Amino acid sequence: MEPAPRRGRPGYDQESLLAVAVKVFNERGYEATSMEELSRKLGITKSAIYHHVSSKEELLRLAMDRALDGLFAVADEAHGMDGRAIDRLEHLVRGSVGVLIDRLPFVTLLLRARGNTKIERAAVARRKEFDRLVTDLVKQAEAEGDVRPDVDPAVTARLLFGMVNSLIEWYKPRSGASIADAVCTIAFDGLRTR
Amino acid sequence: MEPAPRRGRPGYDQESLLAVAVKVFNERGYEATSMEELSRKLGITKSAIYHHVSSKEELLRLAMDRALDGLFAVADEAHGMDGRAIDRLEHLVRGSVGVLIDRLPFVTLLLRARGNTKIERAAVARRKEFDRLVTDLVKQAEAEGDVRPDVDPAVTARLLFGMVNSLIEWYKPRSGASIADAVCTIAFDGLRTR
Repeated sequence: MEPAPRRGRPGYDQESLLAVAVKVFNERGYEATSMEELSRKLGITKSAIYHHVSSKEELLRLAMDRALDGLFAVADEAHGMDGRAIDRLEHLVRGSVGVLIDRLPFVTLLLRARGNTKIERAAVARRKEFDRLVTDLVKQAEAEGDVRPDVDPAVTARLLFGMVNSLIEWYKPRSGASIADAVCTIAFDGLRTR
Repeated sequence: MEPAPRRGRPGYDQESLLAVAVKVFNERGYEATSMEELSRKLGITKSAIYHHVSSKEELLRLAMDRALDGLFAVADEAHGMDGRAIDRLEHLVRGSVGVLIDRLPFVTLLLRARGNTKIERAAVARRKEFDRLVTDLVKQAEAEGDVRPDVDPAVTARLLFGMVNSLIEWYKPRSGASIADAVCTIAFDGLRTR
């Protein structure tokens, strides 16, 4: 998604305003944050905020979409790949780790959403759709004989993304170690030496 | 931990009062919940609550301890086992899944704690100590040649408990499938058939 162009106000465009808003929502909770408070944190008036977004709800929707659009773009890529389901599944897991790292504050907000508002409920519904895509890939990979048949595909999908999503709790940017490699090594090949 | 004995008030003892409080904290957030509101939910007066606990903070501390004591009891069991580190690690992972399932609302509250209060900070510190125990076991198992050497022990510990802790988001009691088996199968042996 392209950032919105600056619209004549100095200091913030929609993109940079959204970044600050999401940081505050993650620290204090979306519901506990008022537009009043956001305007203080941003150091601009409320009407300057409304120059860029129509409401606090729009900020939430933009943030959720930023996370979900990233995840669904990776799912589309995986879906469009030729070859075996296990490779599409691995692509999806690796790509999702990339989205989490690139869009960490947005995904954090998404994963903490409990469905308390209409926008959160829509986001939770899209997350469920994403879970179903993962489950279907695990099923296909099992049917093709590449994934062990003794794991329940829905449970496996949940546990895979349990690992991936845990990044929001502990990931710190560092050079060297690839988290995507670590997730895929553990998930597909297991910790045990053989 | 033994539940506290009833102390003469009808309706609630400390144990059942704590169960309701933790449910409300998980639904509405600890900070957003007042003792006023708890007393309405419980259908008893505030002074009846204070018959059982000294403060809202005490309820939080009791809840956090319920989760953490369970996890550390399993860590102690693992520590006391003879044999190889990988078996102690597997025992710790299986036991932790058991604690999460048995004490789900308590662990949910623990895992959502962000360190906003003194009690939350103490709980976060104990969680870090637990993470270190897991990391040390992964290191030992690597040194004994049972865990593949190409994974970082701290990252592995985080990802293992990323899987385990994700249960608070999706676990629903059901007969049959053992979640502990699923976690250990994926983590130790991997999804891929061989």
